[in-house]
Amino acid sequence: MSTPSTFSASCPFPIEDHARVQMAHGGGGRMMARLIDEMFLVAFGAPDPGERHDSAVLEVGGKRLAFTTDSFVVRPMFFPGGDLGSLAVHGTVNDLAMSGARPKALSAAFILEEGLPLEVLWRIVSSMAMAAKEAGVSIVTGDTKVVDRGKGDGVFITTAGVGWIEHDRKISPGQVRVGDAVLVSGDLGRHGMAVMALREGLEFESEITSDSASIAEPALALIEGGIGVRCLRDLTRGGLTATLNEIAAAGGVGIEVDEVAVPVRGDVAAACELLGLDSLQVACEGRFAAFVADEDAGRALEILSNYGVSQGARLVGRVIERSEGRVILASRIGARRILDLPVGEQLPRIC
Amino acid sequence: MSTPSTFSASCPFPIEDHARVQMAHGGGGRMMARLIDEMFLVAFGAPDPGERHDSAVLEVGGKRLAFTTDSFVVRPMFFPGGDLGSLAVHGTVNDLAMSGARPKALSAAFILEEGLPLEVLWRIVSSMAMAAKEAGVSIVTGDTKVVDRGKGDGVFITTAGVGWIEHDRKISPGQVRVGDAVLVSGDLGRHGMAVMALREGLEFESEITSDSASIAEPALALIEGGIGVRCLRDLTRGGLTATLNEIAAAGGVGIEVDEVAVPVRGDVAAACELLGLDSLQVACEGRFAAFVADEDAGRALEILSNYGVSQGARLVGRVIERSEGRVILASRIGARRILDLPVGEQLPRIC
Repeated sequence: MSTPSTFSASCPFPIEDHARVQMAHGGGGRMMARLIDEMFLVAFGAPDPGERHDSAVLEVGGKRLAFTTDSFVVRPMFFPGGDLGSLAVHGTVNDLAMSGARPKALSAAFILEEGLPLEVLWRIVSSMAMAAKEAGVSIVTGDTKVVDRGKGDGVFITTAGVGWIEHDRKISPGQVRVGDAVLVSGDLGRHGMAVMALREGLEFESEITSDSASIAEPALALIEGGIGVRCLRDLTRGGLTATLNEIAAAGGVGIEVDEVAVPVRGDVAAACELLGLDSLQVACEGRFAAFVADEDAGRALEILSNYGVSQGARLVGRVIERSEGRVILASRIGARRILDLPVGEQLPRIC
Repeated sequence: MSTPSTFSASCPFPIEDHARVQMAHGGGGRMMARLIDEMFLVAFGAPDPGERHDSAVLEVGGKRLAFTTDSFVVRPMFFPGGDLGSLAVHGTVNDLAMSGARPKALSAAFILEEGLPLEVLWRIVSSMAMAAKEAGVSIVTGDTKVVDRGKGDGVFITTAGVGWIEHDRKISPGQVRVGDAVLVSGDLGRHGMAVMALREGLEFESEITSDSASIAEPALALIEGGIGVRCLRDLTRGGLTATLNEIAAAGGVGIEVDEVAVPVRGDVAAACELLGLDSLQVACEGRFAAFVADEDAGRALEILSNYGVSQGARLVGRVIERSEGRVILASRIGARRILDLPVGEQLPRIC
């Protein structure tokens, strides 16, 4: 990304409308995309659309370095299968891996609300440390700020991460080609529904646990296994729908998804139905989509099946020539419909 | 920093006391130091005391990479001489430079409160872009989260940064030697007093403007000019007092400071007196302390005087053999007293 040489000082949003931040500006849908495109990228400079990805890539000493950041504000802070701390590690580790980088080191910045029990902070910090150890990264630098009671919400964590790209392959939306296979690394929607079920007080026969996990190992195994990996993207805010729409738009291709092939657990599907949510739009925190060369799809699924976190991997779609920039869902009854980016968000504060 | 091989699961703070986060845990004093030592470093693993510094240093491709992060929560968001956006750039750029690294790229993560006018966000984002351009860094990756009204406070920004260390010199508290000269790069306390004067509605003959600025150029010029630079540290939370105490403790040395030599502007001193603050404990955001070999002190001051941001540089003290881990202030009337780390903080939410 290059800094723009000239820089407009006028607000790109209509001030006379008294436009204000809405929850949907953080939801992974069209409103967030517009805020990023029309404010942040105008100010900070935009990379080529095909290079926009989960991490920035910098050159250092003849090596390529991936660099990324995410803030985490999920509520409640503890949920089945994870917590704010482990999520803050997995989210950033996964963003690095999606650029084809081996995650190396994280920073951790805490914004604490006055009055937070230190025991709660310790549970979160302990969980971060465990998640980092499991993911093979060190937390090497950090910061602590405290805000007055009522000006924060317990704990917000922002992690940034650096990783090395140890191969020559370019992995980005711009690399996606017509005919590529679209894989997902496992069943969808568990993270979002684990948090929502808790928030809404829903009870099911079996507890829905978050899928929050590091997906670096299987993602890197694809590359090291010689698979023709074009693009990788984790299925976070906005779920599979947002991910595929972003890649279709950035890569200038169409994508067709077979609804029957998309793995969603029965209890997750039931919970989605109960809450009026579309399971394809629900966030995961331990799942990714892999765009791979068609002839490598079978071998890629085989590699993914070797890792617990991706043993439920499936082929769910293809990159197609028509419908440039769009995602088409082929439904159970043979109908085709456009799978559009949601405008706002279904699920506030899910990550 | 290495991850500890075993990891205690028990909270290091007395839970039975229902210990809670206080504003002072973010203030740069003893309470913050204890939280970092007894919680974060226990969980994440601690570097050698002499290597604890503003940035972590990682090896990549035979080069050294500095990596750091800070969250910014200052109130009000706009103040004379700067704002939350420019501060978020300067703070992280300066942390990189204090490790002897040339700042290259920043990440920017925003936690926005629902209801924030987008025009306010634009002013902050514009200011960040300008500050980054001036400091010669690119903002290459970012994130946006939105929290419900009343669960945040307008805008919180967390920046992380990476920079390259382009020389062989080691710059850390562990390098400080008895006899070293202690320089400060300019007059102290303006950032803290600019914010406090605004907050308290104080008016002076001349407006106190924040010193917030990038100090990377003069800091790197010292190294490139062949000065025997041992340690650099920006004078942020807790001011000169906190900085010198941290370095004395980490480096296992004593430091003596001549009160008369420390540059503090008259209006800043008057404002401090009015508010009952110690100007040596007030945060700057564009000032640093440089520990240099005694014989290089004169030439170091000459180099610093070439840069607008450090033209008021002064020799203020020496590293001494006695009083290990302590800072001694030689006062105007010849008396000596220990300049101790404040317990809590004087100034909440100053950065």
